Amino acid sequence: MKIFKLLIFVLSIVYQSHSQTTIQWKEQHPGIWKAIVGKPEKITLLSAANAKPNINALSNLPKTSFPLDKPDIKVEIIDHKTYLRFPLEKEEQIFGLGLNFQTVNQRGRILNLHVDHYGGKDNGRTHAPVPFYVSSKGYGVLIDVARYITVYAGTAIRTDAKHPPVLRDRNTDKQWEAQPYSDAIEILIPAEGANIYVFGGPTPMNVVQRYNLMNGGGYLPPKWGLGFTQRVPTLYSQDDILKEVKSFEEHHFPLDFIGVEPGWHSMAYPCTFEWDKSRFPDPKGFLQTLAQKGISANLWLNPFVSPVGSLYPKIKPYTGSHTVWNGIVPDFTMPQARQLFKDHFMKHHLSIGVGGYKIDEVDGFDSWLWPDVATFPSGTTAEQMRQTYGLMVQNMTGSWYKEINKRTYGLVRASNAGASNFPYVIYNDYYSHKDFITALVNSSFIGVLWTPEVRASKTAEEWVRRMQSVCFSPMAMLNAWADGTKPWSFPEVEQAVNDVANLRMQLLPYLYSAFAQYHFEGKPPFRAMNLVEGFGFKSTTEAGTFDATANPYAMTIKKDIKDQYMMGDFVLVAPMFAGEKSRDVYLPQGKWYDFYTGQLVGENQVIKVTPALDKIPLFVKDGGIIPMIPVRQRAPKANETLPLTVRHYGTAPNSLQLYDDDGTSFDYEKGQYSFTKLAVTKTTDGKLRGEIATPPTGKPFGYTKEIKWEFMTSPTN
Amino acid sequence: MKIFKLLIFVLSIVYQSHSQTTIQWKEQHPGIWKAIVGKPEKITLLSAANAKPNINALSNLPKTSFPLDKPDIKVEIIDHKTYLRFPLEKEEQIFGLGLNFQTVNQRGRILNLHVDHYGGKDNGRTHAPVPFYVSSKGYGVLIDVARYITVYAGTAIRTDAKHPPVLRDRNTDKQWEAQPYSDAIEILIPAEGANIYVFGGPTPMNVVQRYNLMNGGGYLPPKWGLGFTQRVPTLYSQDDILKEVKSFEEHHFPLDFIGVEPGWHSMAYPCTFEWDKSRFPDPKGFLQTLAQKGISANLWLNPFVSPVGSLYPKIKPYTGSHTVWNGIVPDFTMPQARQLFKDHFMKHHLSIGVGGYKIDEVDGFDSWLWPDVATFPSGTTAEQMRQTYGLMVQNMTGSWYKEINKRTYGLVRASNAGASNFPYVIYNDYYSHKDFITALVNSSFIGVLWTPEVRASKTAEEWVRRMQSVCFSPMAMLNAWADGTKPWSFPEVEQAVNDVANLRMQLLPYLYSAFAQYHFEGKPPFRAMNLVEGFGFKSTTEAGTFDATANPYAMTIKKDIKDQYMMGDFVLVAPMFAGEKSRDVYLPQGKWYDFYTGQLVGENQVIKVTPALDKIPLFVKDGGIIPMIPVRQRAPKANETLPLTVRHYGTAPNSLQLYDDDGTSFDYEKGQYSFTKLAVTKTTDGKLRGEIATPPTGKPFGYTKEIKWEFMTSPTN
Repeated sequence: MKIFKLLIFVLSIVYQSHSQTTIQWKEQHPGIWKAIVGKPEKITLLSAANAKPNINALSNLPKTSFPLDKPDIKVEIIDHKTYLRFPLEKEEQIFGLGLNFQTVNQRGRILNLHVDHYGGKDNGRTHAPVPFYVSSKGYGVLIDVARYITVYAGTAIRTDAKHPPVLRDRNTDKQWEAQPYSDAIEILIPAEGANIYVFGGPTPMNVVQRYNLMNGGGYLPPKWGLGFTQRVPTLYSQDDILKEVKSFEEHHFPLDFIGVEPGWHSMAYPCTFEWDKSRFPDPKGFLQTLAQKGISANLWLNPFVSPVGSLYPKIKPYTGSHTVWNGIVPDFTMPQARQLFKDHFMKHHLSIGVGGYKIDEVDGFDSWLWPDVATFPSGTTAEQMRQTYGLMVQNMTGSWYKEINKRTYGLVRASNAGASNFPYVIYNDYYSHKDFITALVNSSFIGVLWTPEVRASKTAEEWVRRMQSVCFSPMAMLNAWADGTKPWSFPEVEQAVNDVANLRMQLLPYLYSAFAQYHFEGKPPFRAMNLVEGFGFKSTTEAGTFDATANPYAMTIKKDIKDQYMMGDFVLVAPMFAGEKSRDVYLPQGKWYDFYTGQLVGENQVIKVTPALDKIPLFVKDGGIIPMIPVRQRAPKANETLPLTVRHYGTAPNSLQLYDDDGTSFDYEKGQYSFTKLAVTKTTDGKLRGEIATPPTGKPFGYTKEIKWEFMTSPTN
Repeated sequence: MKIFKLLIFVLSIVYQSHSQTTIQWKEQHPGIWKAIVGKPEKITLLSAANAKPNINALSNLPKTSFPLDKPDIKVEIIDHKTYLRFPLEKEEQIFGLGLNFQTVNQRGRILNLHVDHYGGKDNGRTHAPVPFYVSSKGYGVLIDVARYITVYAGTAIRTDAKHPPVLRDRNTDKQWEAQPYSDAIEILIPAEGANIYVFGGPTPMNVVQRYNLMNGGGYLPPKWGLGFTQRVPTLYSQDDILKEVKSFEEHHFPLDFIGVEPGWHSMAYPCTFEWDKSRFPDPKGFLQTLAQKGISANLWLNPFVSPVGSLYPKIKPYTGSHTVWNGIVPDFTMPQARQLFKDHFMKHHLSIGVGGYKIDEVDGFDSWLWPDVATFPSGTTAEQMRQTYGLMVQNMTGSWYKEINKRTYGLVRASNAGASNFPYVIYNDYYSHKDFITALVNSSFIGVLWTPEVRASKTAEEWVRRMQSVCFSPMAMLNAWADGTKPWSFPEVEQAVNDVANLRMQLLPYLYSAFAQYHFEGKPPFRAMNLVEGFGFKSTTEAGTFDATANPYAMTIKKDIKDQYMMGDFVLVAPMFAGEKSRDVYLPQGKWYDFYTGQLVGENQVIKVTPALDKIPLFVKDGGIIPMIPVRQRAPKANETLPLTVRHYGTAPNSLQLYDDDGTSFDYEKGQYSFTKLAVTKTTDGKLRGEIATPPTGKPFGYTKEIKWEFMTSPTN
């Protein structure tokens, strides 16, 4: 036995010693190369997400060759860890690396990618710490490992660097820098191997498209998911909620789905997933009443199972070593655990019409989630579980709705790589309006959706400014679980809030088509400016101001454009923030027009705007085509036929593919959808003319054939 | 070859599978038990610190038995990591776990112990993330592993917990808690084994004593180290510094050593460790001039070697894979690297009289230190290097001074377990006055020294309040490297600042004896109240105030006493902070007296004090004996004989062991020191009488035999 152990010891030393590995790249999908280094673990992010690539759409993207010099990519396996190195060029910007809230360009930052509640610093601990980056040079890298990966995004400098920084004496050289130039991204993976993917471009948008399409394409929400949603206070009963719906009607405020907070459970934190009989004596009747009003219900939950619930004894064998608020933690890598959840949820929720879920607390934070010392019956480690739990819950719940051929659209607090096709929008408890917008910008790089939800505000100004932002986001939500706020909580701005909610409803055809782009082409519906062609902004650094306490190393400050973004191909959104009466807007190349007036505002320049309180600054690209419907309180239902007004901005001819389908089922996956080419051309006398260039290529098509064309920009403009 | 690999694979699975290990405890030293679990790594914190236990002093501590129920301590090795669990009782408080700045009781916190610059949150990233905790129940635990250890200090709850928390429904139960009760400390060590130490009490102070004595006992600074020190602006020349010394003389301000900042190097950041010829044309003459004035010089450095220095080509083979500010990083685990530093430093610094060093930037932070992907020629991992670098540099430099039999006292920014006997005080760039005091409190649990250095202040009030605190700390330092401040920078409080510096000089006999306690008995000179017997404060929790954004889980707030501390056995220090005109002081059991007036202030109670601007609140325990010397500008030199005034407070007879030695050499280690018992007894007529109860038991003794006794408390008090 001793000799046996010695043998293992010797062999393991041989095996574990530093091994510089040659990387074998294989083109897995068009423009996507995969390399397997070392011994990748069985549980990975993509395996947990279980997404299926859209090969067809991938094939339609521009041909591209491997975007990096292969020998510049290095890997070593040391001390049970994988060390990776990728090259970086001068001026190269790095985007992605998780749902960051304060920075866009991650070059010069160190991120320890760890699923967690966002704690106020872009350090890698966030709700979706996706280990994927997009380079401004037009390529991307994904590390598919369900571990806490550390990324040194151009901070570390090797003694043998190809492009070493300039040597400077801090005593005398004013150009001395706290962070000298680094020509590499280095990555530490605490596992003995990894699956690595490199994505070709040529543009950053192509990279993002490839990433999303590899993960099944973006999710196409049901139409109602793009309407307005209100979440009610925790202990609202079914009667309270029906009253709430009534008051929305009285205020002529749009409402498509309503969020039911923890009070629906007979016990919450931990949860029973069973209706509380006092507050919800007739769940089925309640849901039917809502449905008759065209409203869907979304149920809050966290997945930690209460000992007093019926699920508890059944699922106990498939749960982890530690409790969360006295609830047991299902091991969702085990089919038994998933099946038990499915049986319960199908029977008690989906079968009676529940429209979706809000999945809370799967992110963290550490103070209550299972610790990293927890163990799970499948052998999945606590760390792997932490990195994939949000993915698994999204995948599981999403699959139930797919099974009943009904689209859902919900909320989740944790996600990761591979989530593009999940029916969930990320949210959190953090509440900086500006940082919420930066998160929206960053969500577009990493295949997730984010809502800058509104909860409460100190002033009417803040209220309307937040409402305007959320109406230009993937989910227009007022989350009143704690405060009981209503859209009209600040009467002095009720009309302004109503206006922007109405505008969102009018824009639904445009927005739905933008989501169709997400699904069919992989283009995110809400986009960082850095994904826009012709966006010439170079991230710049400002010399840091020395301060013995606040900045003793005189660290430089990086300038990002992080407070404006695109909705679809044509609309630039530049939200206003409370306390600010004007703002700068960075306009990419090409002419840009005011959404409200159609007037030219500039091109390839920074403009200052001073919008009225009731207007969120919106700008439309030259040739922008915006299909709109009349103001309404509910998103269009299947089989409705609506009149269409199509706006055109600027002077350039252009076209838009208007997407439509039944808005509720997955039948579009079987071809039941239509793309209609709306085109504006120039007549021989130089006038603009709008037409349906290509009639609907499929069914359904929920609009009348007669279109009202509005040319927003006068020809003299 | 394939079969060979398969064999390794199979064997490694067998070997790595979960292994619940029985722990074998061995009493390593009196009251200190060691267990070796799994396969501990070669590089550990204690191996890097290389401390020798003081067996003799350990033997003099109270006998104690193993303080925990052995079966309640669990260990498992899973996934190349070691999982540890220790029991926790109700009401038990946990102290230590690194140099924390905002909290004292760590129960309920999660700490990832990682050497780093303190970033404003007590999350384990700090200058001395010592993996050692002291329980209020009177035992301690040390994990001797040079890795990033995660400690769940009573946060995680197992499904099989002996004492599970109460199940509560958040919907309806107001007593629902975000962090339910946990009966265990769980620890994740990312290594396949560990050396673990358990320390007996019976008191928390005994635990700390054992810890410090195992690490060689606390460091005894040279007498000059306890005087005042000024650090000069970065680019000061030798002439500038001599002028600075002159202005101290003109202002009659004490000054024992002067800190020379980066400008002495011919290049800094990275460093040459060579004198700059323009600013320091005659280092030897400069140091001699200082020495003639009785002043020592301390040189700033960070250990990253500049390519333009003479050390560079020699040390290059013994440095790591990455640069820091273009400097190479010596692998100090290699004797060759240590020897090269020693040769250089001995020749250019120690031989001409340099008194010590300020070792900067060995802590972090990540943005410029070597990344965790760095490798070192010895095979030591980047993580191990990070956790031990401060220890190794302290040990190395300290040993040079020992070799020339000259005590040093310097500054360092990183430390860890095993550092008690190192001649260094920790400092940083953070600058919250209150948090600086909490760090001073916490330093006493973990065998390190900390200085709440003064740099700049917004107001005269802040200036004097900070100066008062730093004069009641291990190093009375004004660090003007960036601001060029002087003690008299705020003329309106010059006298008050002078007063407190003078008071520190007067208290040197008392302070030096307190440091002797640190060395010979392991009792820290500056102590948390929690180490004081009769300190009855129980850490309490306050219900958290629910706030949908700031505190959505209504987390409770823990109340600590973290703004007052003891200096030696008798003096309670309760610093004032700018903007506050009064403060609460928590008095332990027994009567307490005002230091300045001798009047009774209370016992076992909270008092409110409203001190004048020129007074830092100081309180003396009943029977407190305080030996003092006249005001002077330099600490006593060897062979000086000084008049002694000894104060007594209160009404209780008592005694103090006054320590003395030559104040500069290590001859005290060969018995060249004296302990003199100063006793106050009650005469038959009830009067107090002071005497030298036991004359000096050794030499030297630097005081006149005639003592002036001052009974500060009138008998009627």
